[in-house]
Amino acid sequence: MFGNLLLPEILELIEAKDFRTLKEIMSEWHPADLAELISDLPEATQFVVFRFLPKKLTTPVFEYLSVESQKTILESMGNKEIAAIINDLSPDDRTSLFEELPHSVVKNMLSLLSKEERDIAKTLLGYPEESVGRLMTPEYISVKEDVTIEDVLEKIRKYGKDSETLDVIYVIDEDGKLVDDLTIRQILLSPPQKQIAKLMDYKFSSLNATDDQEIAVDIFRKYDCYALPVIDNDGCLIGIVTIDDILEVAEEETTEDIHKIGGIEALDDSYMQTSVFDLIRKRAIWLIVLFFGEMLTASAMSHFEGDISKAVVLALFVPLIISSGGNSGSQATSLIIRGLALKEFGFSDWWKIMKRELVSGFILGFILGSIGFIRIWLWQSISGIYGPYWLSIGFVVMFSLIGVVMWGTLSGSMLPLLLKRLKLDPATSSAPFVATIVDVTGLILYFSIAQMLLGGKLL
Amino acid sequence: MFGNLLLPEILELIEAKDFRTLKEIMSEWHPADLAELISDLPEATQFVVFRFLPKKLTTPVFEYLSVESQKTILESMGNKEIAAIINDLSPDDRTSLFEELPHSVVKNMLSLLSKEERDIAKTLLGYPEESVGRLMTPEYISVKEDVTIEDVLEKIRKYGKDSETLDVIYVIDEDGKLVDDLTIRQILLSPPQKQIAKLMDYKFSSLNATDDQEIAVDIFRKYDCYALPVIDNDGCLIGIVTIDDILEVAEEETTEDIHKIGGIEALDDSYMQTSVFDLIRKRAIWLIVLFFGEMLTASAMSHFEGDISKAVVLALFVPLIISSGGNSGSQATSLIIRGLALKEFGFSDWWKIMKRELVSGFILGFILGSIGFIRIWLWQSISGIYGPYWLSIGFVVMFSLIGVVMWGTLSGSMLPLLLKRLKLDPATSSAPFVATIVDVTGLILYFSIAQMLLGGKLL
Repeated sequence: MFGNLLLPEILELIEAKDFRTLKEIMSEWHPADLAELISDLPEATQFVVFRFLPKKLTTPVFEYLSVESQKTILESMGNKEIAAIINDLSPDDRTSLFEELPHSVVKNMLSLLSKEERDIAKTLLGYPEESVGRLMTPEYISVKEDVTIEDVLEKIRKYGKDSETLDVIYVIDEDGKLVDDLTIRQILLSPPQKQIAKLMDYKFSSLNATDDQEIAVDIFRKYDCYALPVIDNDGCLIGIVTIDDILEVAEEETTEDIHKIGGIEALDDSYMQTSVFDLIRKRAIWLIVLFFGEMLTASAMSHFEGDISKAVVLALFVPLIISSGGNSGSQATSLIIRGLALKEFGFSDWWKIMKRELVSGFILGFILGSIGFIRIWLWQSISGIYGPYWLSIGFVVMFSLIGVVMWGTLSGSMLPLLLKRLKLDPATSSAPFVATIVDVTGLILYFSIAQMLLGGKLL
Repeated sequence: MFGNLLLPEILELIEAKDFRTLKEIMSEWHPADLAELISDLPEATQFVVFRFLPKKLTTPVFEYLSVESQKTILESMGNKEIAAIINDLSPDDRTSLFEELPHSVVKNMLSLLSKEERDIAKTLLGYPEESVGRLMTPEYISVKEDVTIEDVLEKIRKYGKDSETLDVIYVIDEDGKLVDDLTIRQILLSPPQKQIAKLMDYKFSSLNATDDQEIAVDIFRKYDCYALPVIDNDGCLIGIVTIDDILEVAEEETTEDIHKIGGIEALDDSYMQTSVFDLIRKRAIWLIVLFFGEMLTASAMSHFEGDISKAVVLALFVPLIISSGGNSGSQATSLIIRGLALKEFGFSDWWKIMKRELVSGFILGFILGSIGFIRIWLWQSISGIYGPYWLSIGFVVMFSLIGVVMWGTLSGSMLPLLLKRLKLDPATSSAPFVATIVDVTGLILYFSIAQMLLGGKLL
């Protein structure tokens, strides 16, 4: 919490090589604060400070570091130090570190693990990317159903140290099949002599190791739980997933959604840790796609070039009209993408949503259209710049705005639903993407209405 | 998990008034599934089903329901039933329900509470909105430091039933001052005869009841914890906040961010539960503000009306150019808003960010500009539509794109940082907002470049 406050002092201590004071100060800190401090240091200094951490804090601090800082620190270490840390890391944190390292480095690290840890690490890495298996840890407490509460507490005391969570105790049968889960609350509230069979209801939610991580997020969100068991196809308990890993996945998914809504391919790392090259690449893809889409506006407009040259006034309102469509589309698409992400509704609700959006779109378009009309009327009263056909021009702008805003809300809301239906990511229907669609069609609408209302007058 | 599957069957049972089977089926379900089932039912039926829940499930199911469904169900209930439920609700869930109810209803409900619960409810409602106090529950386990592990376990067995969490046990001194927190893990892993004083390190993170909820979210995120103690100004323990409430706050904040990025005022309820009227109101505000901003494009363009009438070709590229600026701005603003929300960087990093964005903007602009130039060259080669000055037109488009894209990335990235600095919400710098700024200035840039390069030729 005070990490940032002390940063200059820490740097001074390093400068002065006063490592004793450094060590003393750090031993008082929370691992999360130390991790924050280390991340804020210049890369070259990170390892120096990490090395002076009290022994018992190295792994906890390491686990709080971002994968990028973990990499930096590992790179400065010898094999012996690396071995100490990666053998000590919890298996799920280790998997997520290994995921980010080059294949050759992982191979070396695997060889530094003890046989037991290596087997665990290899099994976990064997599951597909983005699967529950990659988040899993085999470190949990399980008991048979014929034991008492007392026995469970005894087992926890003996073997609990390595368990990722003590919030849930799993009950398995002779074959290792999961038969129930008991929360530590149920255990702690029962008298020590009680048989755990008396607490059991043989009901539990579980995940499969090959399930997609998104499914796990949904189940955690729905059941409000802290840990879920992972079973294989035979129903045998093979690991658990805890909420901290799920929260990270959920946060990443949301970040991906926000980036996509903004019209960027999701970044693999945080903004600052992404190289400028990658940043450009991720953005260029969509910018170019959208640019090709937008080139159709030039084609559409050249179709109406004759009209524009007869009535240049029409060109003046082009940005106003297409941007209003884009803005209303952007609103609709963010509403629907977020609602889909939170499972507030699904594709089956499309008709309900469409009705709401058509009504909203019409009224919003009418409001903007009226403002546009009044603006033209006012300017005309003051300066007469729109000439004798100002009223028709006013109506062209007004009707176009109504049409374009309705079209914006409609495509902004229906596109994400359609993508969802096609099992694609709804967030691909980004605000700029919807805007591009609406721009092209909006122009055609605008000039068509102009031809209708101004034909024989200005055109 | 199977809620949706069985919905028609459940409706049939209600139709047939076969409440016995209904009751039997439901007693097998998880409260979260029952809550989902009830939410999916038509409003009129929700209460019928709720009433047939087994007694021990009513409160758990009620707690899983959305506040909207809770309201619907309470409205159909008599005072006696209401009293039973709201006395049984955990204090923090009750506060969040009361927050959504009209003042007069809350007053009635308070009178239905037992004296003890009423005092708790009133205290919690006394804290400011959006403060930690509103998320807090006074139901926790605390011990003095002279007890043994055995004593703690005994106390949990006796009083733990009402505690919101058993994950953390709080140690307080004679005056009620918080002196340490011990995780249940520490307790469970220690031999029963050990004095808890031996486990204590007198270090803990805590919240103040008047702290903003956003601060609580940041601290939970940083320390990866499940519960945090809340203290008053004297350091006395007055309650705890658990991660489930924090997750809800964090989710709401993210939803707000996404809506704002899309250019809408944040909704108070979910999309489906917001009335069409509110939906329109929340959207209209920004649409109108942006519309007034966009009207400047018409003014800007009328400034160049003479140029357009001389070279209509210029008008054709207006949408392409301003939308490219808007798109690159939308990308930059979503990147920066999300990074700020996750505390990946702060205002102090503005210079680092600006450098990255200037480089990215230049290269992206150069890519789009080149594509634009090639397009004009190709069309010219095929049809000669751009006339003798096609090369100059090509350069006007190319240079404008470079300028407008750089300007888009720059304002898209700097605006959220500036808002943050001014202690305003960075997400107010929505994609449409940035696009509007870039549209107006982009037009001026485009026509100025045109005057420079085409002056004396086309213009």
